[in-house]
Amino acid sequence: MSILIKHVQLFDRTTDIYIEKGRFRRIAGKIDIVADTVIDGRPFAILPAFYNMHTHAAMSLMRAYADDIELFSWLNDHIWPLEKNLSEEDVYHGSRLAILEMIKSGTVYFNDMYWYPLGTARAAEEMGIRADIAPVIIDPDGTSGEVEKCNTGVFSHEKEFSPRVRFVLGPHSIYTDSGNALKSCIELARDLGKRVQIHISETASEVENCIKKHGMRPVEYLDSMDFWGPDVLAVHAVHINDRERGILRDNDVIIAHCPASNMKLCSGNFQYAEAVNAGILLTLGTDGASSNNNLSILEEMKLAALWAKSLSGDPTTAPAEEVFGMATRNGAKWAQLDAGEIREGMLADCLLVRRHHHTLTPSDHILSNMVYSADNECIDTVICGGNILMRDRKVKDEDEIIRESEKACRRLLKK
Amino acid sequence: MSILIKHVQLFDRTTDIYIEKGRFRRIAGKIDIVADTVIDGRPFAILPAFYNMHTHAAMSLMRAYADDIELFSWLNDHIWPLEKNLSEEDVYHGSRLAILEMIKSGTVYFNDMYWYPLGTARAAEEMGIRADIAPVIIDPDGTSGEVEKCNTGVFSHEKEFSPRVRFVLGPHSIYTDSGNALKSCIELARDLGKRVQIHISETASEVENCIKKHGMRPVEYLDSMDFWGPDVLAVHAVHINDRERGILRDNDVIIAHCPASNMKLCSGNFQYAEAVNAGILLTLGTDGASSNNNLSILEEMKLAALWAKSLSGDPTTAPAEEVFGMATRNGAKWAQLDAGEIREGMLADCLLVRRHHHTLTPSDHILSNMVYSADNECIDTVICGGNILMRDRKVKDEDEIIRESEKACRRLLKK
Repeated sequence: MSILIKHVQLFDRTTDIYIEKGRFRRIAGKIDIVADTVIDGRPFAILPAFYNMHTHAAMSLMRAYADDIELFSWLNDHIWPLEKNLSEEDVYHGSRLAILEMIKSGTVYFNDMYWYPLGTARAAEEMGIRADIAPVIIDPDGTSGEVEKCNTGVFSHEKEFSPRVRFVLGPHSIYTDSGNALKSCIELARDLGKRVQIHISETASEVENCIKKHGMRPVEYLDSMDFWGPDVLAVHAVHINDRERGILRDNDVIIAHCPASNMKLCSGNFQYAEAVNAGILLTLGTDGASSNNNLSILEEMKLAALWAKSLSGDPTTAPAEEVFGMATRNGAKWAQLDAGEIREGMLADCLLVRRHHHTLTPSDHILSNMVYSADNECIDTVICGGNILMRDRKVKDEDEIIRESEKACRRLLKK
Repeated sequence: MSILIKHVQLFDRTTDIYIEKGRFRRIAGKIDIVADTVIDGRPFAILPAFYNMHTHAAMSLMRAYADDIELFSWLNDHIWPLEKNLSEEDVYHGSRLAILEMIKSGTVYFNDMYWYPLGTARAAEEMGIRADIAPVIIDPDGTSGEVEKCNTGVFSHEKEFSPRVRFVLGPHSIYTDSGNALKSCIELARDLGKRVQIHISETASEVENCIKKHGMRPVEYLDSMDFWGPDVLAVHAVHINDRERGILRDNDVIIAHCPASNMKLCSGNFQYAEAVNAGILLTLGTDGASSNNNLSILEEMKLAALWAKSLSGDPTTAPAEEVFGMATRNGAKWAQLDAGEIREGMLADCLLVRRHHHTLTPSDHILSNMVYSADNECIDTVICGGNILMRDRKVKDEDEIIRESEKACRRLLKK
């Protein structure tokens, strides 16, 4: 499929853009070529699409389920009992709802960690979004064989999906996985050339318990088993000190910062300025809908920028351009995708936003407007790898997706 | 004009609602009556509309103008020089853009403080929104006669507007107005039965300078001139201690909390839990677009809830129902309007939201969904005092408003 976008605004110029075989093939003042789809780009500006670097997509089924209650009770009395009743079909329907939300807010990629990953993979495959999906590995004794089960189980299905949908390793955390399980994970990942995501230093008690048990802080503990590398995504990393930042930087580890979740669950203050100053690459994640409660990277950009400024006391912290980069090219980098910018040869992951939308008026500073002012409605069109996932704000089957996910939620609550 | 809404969801029931002469006249299972407009309410839930308790509407013209820079330079080198060139016509066009944004995000009332208040009043009058508008009073020597000028100037025009559009007093702050000016303000307000809004304790330096100059903290200083009362809105109130909270509570002062602005400008941490625990009524404001950068109370609710939780370390702080009340009935209370709830006899200020929108799915917890998950797009219809300001997300003249405000911005930047 090929797309020709005529007269679209690309930052300070107007240009034609030709997309073919999933990539930006040509960007030039005037392109005359026959394309399968021609889009009149005059009402639009073109921007890179968003990368959501941490979520639990199917948890959209549990949106607003048990909000505003104490963390321990939230998990023990509400989320975990409900999750015990999940089926792959529930995960499929919850993931479809999540992917719908993500497309509607300009996201073309998500990095997932959850139960029944094949349900999520099926939803991603059908809906045209990119996904890296990790089966959750929880193995406190290191005896469950969970890691090997990933290899022989879920990973063996990867070939059934297009290259857009991939499986990665997802050891849940240092407090739910034994040292042996963590070592097996990282060994398997490096054997297979797969990437790894792990929740790390999300709460103060995680750090305290790690020091008690291992005599080290969490980032140091994983460092002692050569866990860290550019293939690992450190999710949250709220409670890390200068030495730990040094370890992450020296190993080219990328962080997935999830401001809404950290604030809503009172996990602690993510030290944005310190991480950037240490030279660590940051990306953005929404976390799951039950701790956010939506999956909008647009909203997450604003939260990240505002919270970082407020914590540093310096309004020059987290400027719009930097935050926009976190939400786009930095995510693509961890995903090892040649994407995140509108450049010839790169993967055609992009948004057409409505230039004359009220939230983007006045129109001089489009990145500032996207980070601080835009709402989802200004995003007209979402293109992922040259495929149109949304146009004129319409996504395929959206009414049916909403209806079926509502039904799945009813079934789950009744189980 | 009368409106009959059939089969709409009002929390846990389905009902008919009849609106006439600006008020909810009847709410009942089945109403058979001839109305000017009949709305099929089946796709919708009805909710109170939002009250934006602090903004500088016309500053939407300066959206994204000089973001991410140091506060002193932001004001001195950018905002103030630009404001010197403003005309009433600019303020009119900027206010129209602001009101468009507010309607699109479900707001039916705004409390404004800015230059050329007649420009803002004209925009509010035309667009059907409610407004309390304060001419800015800056009178550092107490000799400018600014207060009296309000009375003989702007206030004398009030009768030209419908009761929806009112003028109030807006002494800018304790550091830009002398003690005499502040005293004149409060005396005039009480003579005229008008309400007063003032920026108070927004930054730490304001407090330090007040202590140096007056030997008291800002709230105490105003208390020494019997300034406080339920007719006064304390805007920001970031840096207040327990004694000051006691003064505000004992005088039934309502606070306008502006989380996005406080975070973006690094003003300090608003002590939400402390204010609520002290028994102070809180409302929400967006502040102006150049320190936010939009005017969405929907977004402000989420920010307020997340920031309050994060600062208190307690996820039960700022529950959704409480925050929704801040954005609706608490604002109406300060505005002395019989509004903020869907009840027979009350002013018909309400929203019809799309029940089956993806951000509101699953649909069990509508207030949680509105606070934590909703985007503007789920708001279909906005009704203010029985007049429909938006239906199917369309507002009268929106393309023209956007075009004219963009032009006004160009003219202003060239001046």
